[in-house]
Amino acid sequence: MFIDELVKAIKEKRSNVVVGLDPRIESIPEVVKGRYFNQYGKTLKAVAEAILEFNKEIIDNVCDVVAAVKPQIAFYEQYGLEGLDAYIKTCKYAKEKGLLIIGDIKRGDIGTTSKAYANAHLGNVDIEGVEHETFAVDSITVNPYLGGDTLEEFIEDINEFGKGMFVLVKTSNPGSGQLQDLVVEGKRIYEVVAEMVDNLSQKTLGTCGYSSVGAVVAATYPEQAKTLRKSMPKSYFLVPGYGAQGASADDIVDCFNEDGLGAVINSSRGIIFAYKKSEKGYTQEKYGEAARKEALDMRDAINKALESNGKCYW
Amino acid sequence: MFIDELVKAIKEKRSNVVVGLDPRIESIPEVVKGRYFNQYGKTLKAVAEAILEFNKEIIDNVCDVVAAVKPQIAFYEQYGLEGLDAYIKTCKYAKEKGLLIIGDIKRGDIGTTSKAYANAHLGNVDIEGVEHETFAVDSITVNPYLGGDTLEEFIEDINEFGKGMFVLVKTSNPGSGQLQDLVVEGKRIYEVVAEMVDNLSQKTLGTCGYSSVGAVVAATYPEQAKTLRKSMPKSYFLVPGYGAQGASADDIVDCFNEDGLGAVINSSRGIIFAYKKSEKGYTQEKYGEAARKEALDMRDAINKALESNGKCYW
Repeated sequence: MFIDELVKAIKEKRSNVVVGLDPRIESIPEVVKGRYFNQYGKTLKAVAEAILEFNKEIIDNVCDVVAAVKPQIAFYEQYGLEGLDAYIKTCKYAKEKGLLIIGDIKRGDIGTTSKAYANAHLGNVDIEGVEHETFAVDSITVNPYLGGDTLEEFIEDINEFGKGMFVLVKTSNPGSGQLQDLVVEGKRIYEVVAEMVDNLSQKTLGTCGYSSVGAVVAATYPEQAKTLRKSMPKSYFLVPGYGAQGASADDIVDCFNEDGLGAVINSSRGIIFAYKKSEKGYTQEKYGEAARKEALDMRDAINKALESNGKCYW
Repeated sequence: MFIDELVKAIKEKRSNVVVGLDPRIESIPEVVKGRYFNQYGKTLKAVAEAILEFNKEIIDNVCDVVAAVKPQIAFYEQYGLEGLDAYIKTCKYAKEKGLLIIGDIKRGDIGTTSKAYANAHLGNVDIEGVEHETFAVDSITVNPYLGGDTLEEFIEDINEFGKGMFVLVKTSNPGSGQLQDLVVEGKRIYEVVAEMVDNLSQKTLGTCGYSSVGAVVAATYPEQAKTLRKSMPKSYFLVPGYGAQGASADDIVDCFNEDGLGAVINSSRGIIFAYKKSEKGYTQEKYGEAARKEALDMRDAINKALESNGKCYW
């Protein structure tokens, strides 16, 4: 089951870090993309090849340091079928390297349409009795706006295939409060969603005591995270906003339970494009090493912050 | 601009009908899929070919009767790259037949990630100065949970490429009220979203007086539609829930303004899989004709209901 595998990986690697694989071609080092542009021109094919090579090098360098990777599908989807092929191959490679994969897809729709997304990204699609895997990863992110019944559609595949999902509760963007922070009968909208998540978490508990239904809770709003930690005690938090988006290790301590578990912290640009920080002596030739160094620093900073707060999971 | 083209198509064809192209392989006639299963086995390739042939026949039969088609991407995505290839080819074929295309993708994410979705589904993706089209259609559906700033990310491509979007306001599923109907300081959440939409509509007005930023407002909740019509006077409604989901022509009259414009009504299963209604004399061999007949009936029923209410756009 996803959540048991996640907690096992966290403990074995002593790391709560998730690396976001968000490949923007404009940020991929010239030493990588230059070759493919020479070979294929400025085409979708060249971009897809460059992304895959780049991701593999990042994965090789961080696979023993991070618990999971989180490819953001939008950055692949924009490059069409070629880009999505790179998404599939990236996930396959990460799997081979022993990593768990959280597909950041933020899907959500009504009834059988949500089920189609579940089939695509968690389970299998059935063709008259023959099962096929398409984009299946270990866990995904989903959007709750359409209501609890639409989230329920994912539960069957989560249980059947041992997968997981993180429901958007409180996102990291500046305007996230516009809807999510509104107050309904003394409760904020994100708390209403948290109740849906907590309800679903009871149906998807792992042997580790946590649930395969988690929540996206941004590090950029630490006060809200504190409240939410209490309302979803069994749910893992997938926490965006660390590093490039502004949150520090101290900001995310409240996302964890007293047992030091309950959260994974994502960083994307701050790790994968670390090579740009030339002041640290990083170079584009060694972008993989730069990513590894930043992932190690992030892991250690988080563990230190947890330790200072008496939240050791090791 | 999208909205001007849409209103033109509605007036020329005297039709507010949108056909949802939601191909479930289990519902595609044996006469179509049987051949591909024989040729390719029960593979993704066979499904993709069957879907494309099926969609083309539907498009051929309804292209002069409906204003737009709305492929639901989840039903293609579940069949992987092959399925998405069928999505792209379906959109291309519909375009050739003079139809507008609304990609029912329900995407939404933060900042640059939303922009990546906009590039993928509305505009172009830039590869160091070379522009490529990937999944670009005329208009898409988007999810507002992340806030107004994330919707803004689509506006640039809407204006630059003359495209459109429909923001989820009130969806058709039974549980849509769980979040959308909550009351905040006297206003329901869907009304708060409606205000965001109305605000964005001012930035995207066409010469027809309507905006390229519209709203998804379900036919299954006519009372809410009535209120929403007033709060988004410039926005077109994309109305799901007709037919198979239970709403009738009379239910959707309040989605229209007094000028008889302001809404397009979607039906998916009720039209494309009409051939199953053997009591009407339809056969699987003539599934295209069955779809045409149902689309015509729907067009006429809606126009009649509009006429009875003094809302003639012709």
